[in-house]
Order: sequence, then structure tokens, then C-alpha cells
Amino acid sequence: MTFSQLLAEAVCSKCTPVLVGLDPKFEFIPESMRSGIDANDIWKAPSVLKRFCCNVIDVVAPLVPAVKLQAACFERYGSYGMIALDNVIKYASEKGLLTIFDGKRGDIGSTAELYASGILGKNSAWGADAMTVSPYMGADSIEPFVKTATEQNAGIFILVKTSNPGGKMFQDLKSNRKTIYNHVARYVQELAVSTLKNNDNNTQYGDVGAVVGATWSKELSELREILKSAWLLVPGYGSQGANAEDIAPVFDKNGLGAIINNSRGLLYAYKNEPYKSKYGEQKWETATEEATKNMIEQLKNKTNAGKLT
Amino acid sequence: MTFSQLLAEAVCSKCTPVLVGLDPKFEFIPESMRSGIDANDIWKAPSVLKRFCCNVIDVVAPLVPAVKLQAACFERYGSYGMIALDNVIKYASEKGLLTIFDGKRGDIGSTAELYASGILGKNSAWGADAMTVSPYMGADSIEPFVKTATEQNAGIFILVKTSNPGGKMFQDLKSNRKTIYNHVARYVQELAVSTLKNNDNNTQYGDVGAVVGATWSKELSELREILKSAWLLVPGYGSQGANAEDIAPVFDKNGLGAIINNSRGLLYAYKNEPYKSKYGEQKWETATEEATKNMIEQLKNKTNAGKLT
Repeated sequence: MTFSQLLAEAVCSKCTPVLVGLDPKFEFIPESMRSGIDANDIWKAPSVLKRFCCNVIDVVAPLVPAVKLQAACFERYGSYGMIALDNVIKYASEKGLLTIFDGKRGDIGSTAELYASGILGKNSAWGADAMTVSPYMGADSIEPFVKTATEQNAGIFILVKTSNPGGKMFQDLKSNRKTIYNHVARYVQELAVSTLKNNDNNTQYGDVGAVVGATWSKELSELREILKSAWLLVPGYGSQGANAEDIAPVFDKNGLGAIINNSRGLLYAYKNEPYKSKYGEQKWETATEEATKNMIEQLKNKTNAGKLT
Repeated sequence: MTFSQLLAEAVCSKCTPVLVGLDPKFEFIPESMRSGIDANDIWKAPSVLKRFCCNVIDVVAPLVPAVKLQAACFERYGSYGMIALDNVIKYASEKGLLTIFDGKRGDIGSTAELYASGILGKNSAWGADAMTVSPYMGADSIEPFVKTATEQNAGIFILVKTSNPGGKMFQDLKSNRKTIYNHVARYVQELAVSTLKNNDNNTQYGDVGAVVGATWSKELSELREILKSAWLLVPGYGSQGANAEDIAPVFDKNGLGAIINNSRGLLYAYKNEPYKSKYGEQKWETATEEATKNMIEQLKNKTNAGKLT
């Protein structure tokens, strides 16, 4: 099965497009899990990240189709952090979740090949099902990722319009009356189409997707229109400001075509109301579980995700 | 001392701007160092990379100011590869070389902070003196790198015009009569100026530099002109096609302002003439040494690098 088929199946079987972003930040992890350990202790802190992420995975694995691993949170701690990342990816896979390695990698062709072969697919060193890729270096820096992805039943998500306010600095510059993100989006669509199989009855989407920030509600319809054959990975929901209404345009009529990431809003639900008063730090896992269920409900009620079967 | 001052001092003390790119590719490493080990063996291959890189460092440490570590070559092998990368960075530092972590990282602000704090400066987990950064996500994704760099006496090099042919796909699109790389270059120049200290007599350059491919000889003068206060990291020399004449415009009148990367042409010199016949695989280190000295000579004879004192 291709990545696109795996993703469609996972989204349908859990009946939700919610993607849990594993961005473990030491300072936000419940005190009880990190007491006596310094935030900058590169030997001990990674094992706290690992334990926290595995606990989150235990909570969300029955509820959602996939998790996104933020590489920076682990790379912060050097190679010890990367061992923790490795362990967490493997644990998530064992629990039946699809895994997305979020490192926004990109380099000249011969180097891109190494990133791709190391990260993509169950047989690779990292064993991720998909990864995020930066488009700045152009076609020959992206093609090796596409090639490896299709060979390994894996996928990639190319940055198109990122969720951060500064994203518009270069992405919104206009060239030939089109924004740069529009140029990138049209290229991503081409790549996505190139990965479609004739016998692909299961889904209309290819193995090349796009990262499109939920925070740009006006642009989401434009991008959904261009990116007809690309899965959208949508960050920016929750803590970054977007809600279910904002992101409604990203889904097709069956509720497919997009996965919606939430990191802080789910992982650290215990720090914010209503979960804070209800569960507090001691029951942080219950807070995460309820926040995840609430997000699933919101998307079900206010978007076509409610039509998933 | 700031990174810019450290770099100027290192370039002057070795009298050359040659940057050795440590891009260890298992398949190119001398047979004798890898016999009996499979290229895809994620446990054993990293130790071969490490040994090879440390041997290269022994050869080039007396000759050049800095090395650039290509993260992808190590990340290919998962967390075991990252341990090797960690060891190689530390070994290069011990041997007195400045180290540039080439990972082209970039993410939203709060995540960029983690990359920056983990990679930049002697006190960080990775302990690199500088790193490469991708500009696609805009100002708020880059500022955390600048902040940490100046605090840690470290530097960053932002991708402006990359050496690969496909680089022009988005970088050369025109907006308001200027290419995207020109827009990025002007922003990098602003950042570089923002890091200049009043008492900075040693050098006119800041701690924010730019990656500018040697393969675009026509554009190098334009970029040198815009990037008056930025060190240029110039890949693409040698195997990628550029020669000393091509890159002459990147230096200022004192031979400062740019470092010229060569990876394959130096690391695997033994595979190509004239070194192949002269030294062969057995004396690969002598081949690397002579190729490095030849590159130093070429830059000395044909560019302002000859004026370094």
C-alpha cells in the first residue's frame, strides 16, 4: 500500500484527521516526570522526553491515525536526544500510529538522497512513514525525496505556506502575479499527480503532500483548489490561533485530504483551562485524552471530517 | 570574541579561506577502512564514517581554518550516525578547527530556538561554531538563530543562492524586479549589520552570513555587493564545477569575506587524477593533503586570498 492509501485508511479507521504533534519541551512536561533533572542536562533530559512522549502515545494511539515528531525538540539535546527520538518513532509505530518526521530537511540532490533513505520507510534507519521537506532549493533537491518515498511506501510534506506570522515574508512575495507559495503549491500538485497510480481507487491523493498553516484561513481555499491531489498537513490549530471553522475548507466532501496537527494544545492540556482545574498536573494524561477527544469532536461537528467512515 | 572575529582570525592564521566539507559517503571511503561492513549497516557504518572524518581532520587541521559537517551523511544512519557526528564535531574542535553544522535547519520561532540552543556555541549539546539555516519560513523563524548566535559567539549562514542547478526554480523568480534570492540577500545583510559591534575593528563582517553557490559566477558580484557585511559560505567549488577564477569576486581587497567549501574534491581526491595514479587508495591521506594544498595555492594565485596575512 502507498503512503497515501495507508494515511486514508488510518484516518478512516479512527474516523478523524487529528494529528498529534509530539513537540516535547522539557519545561512544559509535568513536574513529577522531570523533578531533580535540569532542563539542559543532555544526558538525563532526553529520557524524560522519551517517557513523556511514550505516555502520550499510549493515550492517543487508540484515538488518532498519526503523530508528528518535531526533530528540533530532540536535536536540542545532541545525539542523546536523537536516540530518544529514534525510540519514540519506533514506539509510535509499534502502537500502530503513522509517524511523520518533522525536520523540514532539504539539500542538493546527492545529499537529499541520504536524508530520504535514512528517514523514509519502515526499512530506513529512522523508520518514519513520512517527513517534512523545505522547497527553497528547488526541484533537484526535492525529487530524491519523492523517489524514495514512492519506493518505500512513504510520503513527504513540502512546506508551502507555513503557520508562523513571518512566513509571509518571502512566501507572499508575488512573481508573475502569483505568490511564491502559489508557485510552490503548483509544483507540489505536479509531484503529487506524478505519484498517483492508475489502480488508485482508494484515494485521489498522491504521496507528496503540502504543509499549509491553519492560521491563514483566507488562503486555505485557494491552496485546497490548487493542491487537488495532495494531502495537506495543517499546523497552527489551537495554541497558534486557528479553530475548526477556519480549517473547514481543507477537507474534501468525504472528510479526507487533510490532517490537522495540534501539539501544545494536546500535550500540555493540563496547563490550560478547562483541563487545568478539572485534572491538574497529576492527571495530565486524562487532560490530554479529553483535549484530544474534544478536538476530534470539534472537527467532526464543524467540518467534513464528520463524514469520515 | 565574536564568531566573525574568530573566523577572520582563523582564516588569517592559516592564510587561506578553504573550508573542508566533511560529507562522508560510505561508498567513497577507501575500501580498506570499510571492508566487511555493509553500506547500510546502521550499527557499524557510522564508526567507519567517524574514523574516516577524524583521519581527514588530522590531515587538514594544520592547513585550513574550518570544516563543514554535512548532517545528512550522519542522519542517514539514524541515532548511531548522530553519535558519530557528535564525536567528529568535538574532534574537529579539539584540533583547533572552527566547525559549521550544515543541516539547513529552520522552523517556527519557538522551535527554531531549540535548534539554535542545541547546535550553536561551545556550551551547546552539539558544540558547533556555526550552522546553516533555511530562509523559507521568514524573519520570525530566523531571528532566534541570530539571537542565540550572538549570545554564544557563534554564527549562522542563511541559504541565499544555492549551488545546485534546481536552486534557480524558486530562488530566481522575480518579485518587484528583484529575484527572491536578492530579497533574501538584502534581509541577510540587514541581519549581519545588526550584529556588528561598534568596537569591531577586526573585521567589517557580522555573525550572520550567506550561502552563495560558486556555480553562479555571474551572480557572485551582485551578491557580494548586496552582502557587504556578511561572510559568504561558498559551496560548489571543484566537483560541482566552479574554479578559482569563478569565485574571485567573493573576496574583499584583503582576501577576507568568504570561505570556499570543497567536499568530494578533497575527501576523495584519491579517486581522481592526478592523485589516483600518484597515490592510489593506500595513500589516500596524502592525496587529500596534496589536493587541499593545491586548492589553497589556486585560491592564493587567482584571487585576493593571496593577500591574506
